[in-house]
Amino acid sequence: MEPTLRDGEAEDRAFDVFARACPSRGTLEHVTGRWGSLTLGALHGGQLRFNELRRRVDGVSEKMLSQTLHALERDGLVHREAQPTNPPRVDYELTPLGREVAQRLLDLIHLVEGRMDDVLLARGSYDAARGGL
Amino acid sequence: MEPTLRDGEAEDRAFDVFARACPSRGTLEHVTGRWGSLTLGALHGGQLRFNELRRRVDGVSEKMLSQTLHALERDGLVHREAQPTNPPRVDYELTPLGREVAQRLLDLIHLVEGRMDDVLLARGSYDAARGGL
Repeated sequence: MEPTLRDGEAEDRAFDVFARACPSRGTLEHVTGRWGSLTLGALHGGQLRFNELRRRVDGVSEKMLSQTLHALERDGLVHREAQPTNPPRVDYELTPLGREVAQRLLDLIHLVEGRMDDVLLARGSYDAARGGL
Repeated sequence: MEPTLRDGEAEDRAFDVFARACPSRGTLEHVTGRWGSLTLGALHGGQLRFNELRRRVDGVSEKMLSQTLHALERDGLVHREAQPTNPPRVDYELTPLGREVAQRLLDLIHLVEGRMDDVLLARGSYDAARGGL
């Protein structure tokens, strides 16, 4: 694992998500976006077809899942394979880089899921201090 | 580090971001949102004032940064401390849970930044295969 860079060291890197014009910011948005993170997380379990993905990523529309997959495919994170069957079947799977990204996302997802009791307590205190907003 | 859960094991967890009604999905969106991820990443370097944060998170508006900080404070990830000075000064810093979340985000950010050459190559191939779109 890469060592953590301190704040002032960011300028030494070729790509810097904190700079608004850096292309890495767009890729970070694709992988952390509402549907991008869940799509990558779902594909970490293995290859899935479009409709299987759609069921797994509960709440995503066909249009949004399609857009999400195109962006991830374009960034080289997801591989799309159209099977020559009748009816046609399209499988999606992570590329090696996609797997690395998805693993980091799952580390984050599992941390968040595992600490939701603390998050909900914090929300309760915050709202109570503001008169039950 | 928590072991990776396989797909079929998700149902055993109390909170599941893949379920649309689960409150963990909202928290994941706060921490992975366009400005949430950069705000948490910036605060990982230490306590910052509002305007310092705004400079670091290049491109964020005052309104969006304010909304982002409120959501992160409500979820118990950021601590806001108003100093009794004149003019008043407000410092923001990560809570212990916020630090854990920010570390996972930085792992992801550094991976993306470090692999942008591959991402840009993939984009070039993708666009070329589609007639230079």
